[in-house]
Amino acid sequence: MSQEYPSQLLERAVNEFTKLPGIGRKTATRLVLHLLRRQEEEVASFSDAMIRLKREAVYCKCCHSISDTEICPICANPSRDHSLICVVENIQDVMAVENTMQYRGVYHVLGGVISPMDGVSPGDLKIESLVNRVAEGEVKEIILALSSTMEGDTTNFYIYRKLSQYNVKLSVIARGISVGDELEYADEITLGRSIVNRTPFTGKTY
Amino acid sequence: MSQEYPSQLLERAVNEFTKLPGIGRKTATRLVLHLLRRQEEEVASFSDAMIRLKREAVYCKCCHSISDTEICPICANPSRDHSLICVVENIQDVMAVENTMQYRGVYHVLGGVISPMDGVSPGDLKIESLVNRVAEGEVKEIILALSSTMEGDTTNFYIYRKLSQYNVKLSVIARGISVGDELEYADEITLGRSIVNRTPFTGKTY
Repeated sequence: MSQEYPSQLLERAVNEFTKLPGIGRKTATRLVLHLLRRQEEEVASFSDAMIRLKREAVYCKCCHSISDTEICPICANPSRDHSLICVVENIQDVMAVENTMQYRGVYHVLGGVISPMDGVSPGDLKIESLVNRVAEGEVKEIILALSSTMEGDTTNFYIYRKLSQYNVKLSVIARGISVGDELEYADEITLGRSIVNRTPFTGKTY
Repeated sequence: MSQEYPSQLLERAVNEFTKLPGIGRKTATRLVLHLLRRQEEEVASFSDAMIRLKREAVYCKCCHSISDTEICPICANPSRDHSLICVVENIQDVMAVENTMQYRGVYHVLGGVISPMDGVSPGDLKIESLVNRVAEGEVKEIILALSSTMEGDTTNFYIYRKLSQYNVKLSVIARGISVGDELEYADEITLGRSIVNRTPFTGKTY
């Protein structure tokens, strides 16, 4: 449905917003009109934040996460365990793991998973750079924390093969019933795996 | 839940996005990381569109819709019927009515409806300016196209009182069963009104 915009400036701003994922024309109009009601300094601050992020943020030379400096704060932190690397798909996953407060190692952001359907081959991912980090000899364990999909499993296996010549422990994050979930609603593959990979009961609850 | 962002620039950009209505932290992160993957010129164009809209767009002196010029294209169009004014709450409503392609009159954007609960009094709306337009004597009919809520009805009544001294026809848009709706799912108030306000059957279908 075409909309006759009363203002070209409005139409242009709405069009820019609709280029973002999951933002349709109605939502874009609502967001833009909300911005329009704000003070000019606030809109300037919004615009400036986007352009500065694009111009000044870099990818960490070590783990490929986003960073304001050449080496990200996590890689530069001496109190983190640099012998333990958690391999994730993207920056959101780094933040998700950080939010658990359960992990004190470092990360390696692949930038995706191997997916021939989407045209993503191993060469498009930061796998070579992971192998180089392991080749330096400081790394003791790699935790694979990729999506539990066929593409994730393929990528896990590819990394496993690439690292087989090095003396490094490889593990994957546990798959099982989500905390708070009821058994009857779990799918049978997850439930089956959770029985095969059962863990010793220590009397603790979470 | 706090998130330890690997980049202050990223955190600032995400915070700016979360100030928009209906955008939470996860959505904001997704949108910002999408922008980050685009070319610098595209991000610059996005930022520029927002700030230019805020700096250069104005409200039409006549109907208070958004405009690039002092008088909006609709008010400036001599082929539109300037004796017919459709009163709406906001700019989105102007676009919604325009999209119907059924209306060739002009508009008047109130900027909201009277709502004591939200602290919106008649003085906060462009009602005085509507009365002034009518007082000029060119207007023959006013169509009230406000929300079908208590606030909308209150505003309709307030405008009715304000315009009672002028020789102008006042109408409200029809309330009834939506086109394509099944009767059994309609609420009883709408169904009741649609029977009271039945229209002559002319043999046409829509």
